[in-house]
Amino acid sequence: MNIKDHMKYFMEPKSIAMIGVPRNTGRLSFNYLENLLEYGYSGKIFPVNPSAKEILGVKCYPTLKDIPYNIDLALIATPRDTVLGVVKECAEKRVKAVAIVTQGFSEFNKEGKALEEEMVRIIRESGGRLLGPNTIGVANAFRNVTTSFARPELKRLPIGVILQTGSFFPGTQKFLLAGKGIDLGNTSDIDFSDCLEYFGDDPETKVIALYVEGIDDGRKFMNVARRVSKKKPILALKTGRSESGLKATLSHTGHMASNDQVYDAVFKQSGIIRVQDFEEQNDLAQAFSCLQPMRGKGLGIVTMSGSGGVLAADACQDNGLQVADLRQDTRAKIQAMSLPWTTISNPVDIWPAVFSETNTDMSEKYIQVSETILKLVAKDPTVHGILFIAGIFNKKDEIDPTEIIFHYSNLFHKKPIVCVFLGRNPAIIDKVNETGKTVVLPSYERGVRVLGRLHQYAKNSKSLSR
Amino acid sequence: MNIKDHMKYFMEPKSIAMIGVPRNTGRLSFNYLENLLEYGYSGKIFPVNPSAKEILGVKCYPTLKDIPYNIDLALIATPRDTVLGVVKECAEKRVKAVAIVTQGFSEFNKEGKALEEEMVRIIRESGGRLLGPNTIGVANAFRNVTTSFARPELKRLPIGVILQTGSFFPGTQKFLLAGKGIDLGNTSDIDFSDCLEYFGDDPETKVIALYVEGIDDGRKFMNVARRVSKKKPILALKTGRSESGLKATLSHTGHMASNDQVYDAVFKQSGIIRVQDFEEQNDLAQAFSCLQPMRGKGLGIVTMSGSGGVLAADACQDNGLQVADLRQDTRAKIQAMSLPWTTISNPVDIWPAVFSETNTDMSEKYIQVSETILKLVAKDPTVHGILFIAGIFNKKDEIDPTEIIFHYSNLFHKKPIVCVFLGRNPAIIDKVNETGKTVVLPSYERGVRVLGRLHQYAKNSKSLSR
Repeated sequence: MNIKDHMKYFMEPKSIAMIGVPRNTGRLSFNYLENLLEYGYSGKIFPVNPSAKEILGVKCYPTLKDIPYNIDLALIATPRDTVLGVVKECAEKRVKAVAIVTQGFSEFNKEGKALEEEMVRIIRESGGRLLGPNTIGVANAFRNVTTSFARPELKRLPIGVILQTGSFFPGTQKFLLAGKGIDLGNTSDIDFSDCLEYFGDDPETKVIALYVEGIDDGRKFMNVARRVSKKKPILALKTGRSESGLKATLSHTGHMASNDQVYDAVFKQSGIIRVQDFEEQNDLAQAFSCLQPMRGKGLGIVTMSGSGGVLAADACQDNGLQVADLRQDTRAKIQAMSLPWTTISNPVDIWPAVFSETNTDMSEKYIQVSETILKLVAKDPTVHGILFIAGIFNKKDEIDPTEIIFHYSNLFHKKPIVCVFLGRNPAIIDKVNETGKTVVLPSYERGVRVLGRLHQYAKNSKSLSR
Repeated sequence: MNIKDHMKYFMEPKSIAMIGVPRNTGRLSFNYLENLLEYGYSGKIFPVNPSAKEILGVKCYPTLKDIPYNIDLALIATPRDTVLGVVKECAEKRVKAVAIVTQGFSEFNKEGKALEEEMVRIIRESGGRLLGPNTIGVANAFRNVTTSFARPELKRLPIGVILQTGSFFPGTQKFLLAGKGIDLGNTSDIDFSDCLEYFGDDPETKVIALYVEGIDDGRKFMNVARRVSKKKPILALKTGRSESGLKATLSHTGHMASNDQVYDAVFKQSGIIRVQDFEEQNDLAQAFSCLQPMRGKGLGIVTMSGSGGVLAADACQDNGLQVADLRQDTRAKIQAMSLPWTTISNPVDIWPAVFSETNTDMSEKYIQVSETILKLVAKDPTVHGILFIAGIFNKKDEIDPTEIIFHYSNLFHKKPIVCVFLGRNPAIIDKVNETGKTVVLPSYERGVRVLGRLHQYAKNSKSLSR
């Protein structure tokens, strides 16, 4: 079977068996059956537990063999010594997709590694595929699927994540929000390439994010990644940059990573964008979900903060962008709107224009000036993207730039716009993010970084297509 | 007069005159008189506006001369051509502290620069000092003082900021929160050194943050900074790292900054910690407000996320820390609590101990295990600080580590602890931050970075004291 089709048994299963479901439910029970039910999964669910007749009203089966239906996905979370037996039952039942949660295999010792290889062999021979062990499994917000023992926080976002960790499920404070996720665990069988094949063709996924501790088959990975990255941006976070990181990796998923520079080269040649941390990955995943690539390195900075403009200009250098050298006619038009003693250059400070007439309503004036300047700057051929530093202030002095963003986007969607706002006003930030026409970043540097990567992707795509 | 005492006229004025108060009030009026009144300032306020009898119920005076009281602080926000005249009136009235909001001086052209120098001369001769021009002025949450035209968001935090920008007043999404702030504007008279003298002796300030576009008197600055940084950490954000940044700086506050490496050297020799952006400055200001310096480079990482441990270990290398090589007896004690097949090393994963007995209440077990492991790790002499990566999950599965932090801090306050939490649970994050015993950071990398700087400060203090 085609790997793309096979992956659907993991990601879009019609039936799920859960072997080793705990009887405890409720607060802090970490019960995956409960999570799956709460998540609203509409396929068939078969809990396996020899000492329970039912859990949460769902009929239990003493063993896998007793289930009178075909199983697409089986989740195994029984004690370590019993796992091999359950794997054999899965093979007999021709389960298509098997995920093993249990720990203590190749990440622990040689005996565990041998056992792991044995299990892969058994499943593959029966026509199935194995995810893990040492995995939290899969989640798919579009089909209400989750095998996670921690309650996942997913949204139907066009972001697919492939990780050698389960910690994306509960999420850190500002962790990667995704629509679909796969935890590879020890990556004994199903690997990054297999998942990339799936996400590459998946119409519900626009951006792919990887958390990599180690890749075993580099050649296969590069072939697939090169092909997929032309269609969809791939954002990779790779650990083991340091000796301590490598050591920690080894005891986490059993990966003995090679020289970090090798990964750098692999990512580069595959058109993959390497990120520094989850924060950057999250920023970029959001941005690539809704913004076009930036087709040149000229950045227009429209700002209500002088220091914001200065810091953004500095950040251009770190991110492969240039502060666009605006054309004379663009500058003259903005000058004509502004206080006479000002000189207009990029970054463009909006205050001299806002303050040029003091008798109009400040809010209207601010909105109108911002919009006019944004359009003038975006029309300039030296500009390929915009950083918009706007004051939204607090609730009492609220300014709402949502409509500006809509208008801008209708006219200039090929010149991506990223926002940084001054003011603590979460409602406005959410509203602007929800337009799907821009992303709001919390700092100038992170705003410019996102634009730099939007440009890098445009460059990558060009060079890969040659 | 001693500069420290003089600065009190700016920061703790008993009377404030505001020359050029707008008559518009309410939403988006940017009226500093209104802001000052709302802020609850209890000193005397004298608005000056020749065409209003009163504004917001406060009696107005046609000119400064008509005010029958001594003025500590005068704020000038009249049109550019009138400023020199008002400055002369301030000198005649022997106003101690003069702040000029109006723009269009040395940051604009040579004539503006000459005018600026003239104003400084006039004020200095009368015994006063000048802040700005092109400044938003001062704010002091401890005395309910603000001269800002944007409503400031300040808290009584032991953080003092000295900036060549006014944008800290409204605040970006996660901008520097401070207790006291001074915007130097064009820095024609009052400069970084003067403000450092004030904050260095100010009992309400524990940490000082700078936003620097340019420093004119490097020698004076280094002398003061070297002295102050021994008592209180100084965190500097310096712009103009790039050519574009330098150009933008010039048109913002008129500073023609010199080679960026010169600043690097100045900061280093003064014991100042240089930060990359406002986000880092904010993280560090919070951390230094409540945590002790880290007296060695050994970091203990106690984690409920394997990948979190790996990423934190990688981040150690970037931040001058080492993943502590825990002693055999420490590891043996943790091993004894854990599942038999696990090997214990740093980063210390807490799950093997949490899961070693499955029949206890998970929440209690989790808390108890975390606390025991934290103490064992902190007792180890190879450990000088802790990164605690804990699951707080979401509201339904909430785990509250507040008490763990209190207990830890009572025993080990000399080994600073920084937290990163898995789970989107703002209430718990606020609660833990409010203990004043730790800071919660949103990513592993930012957590380790904070600890790295806590160690850097300990090293700096040692070398400066030699």
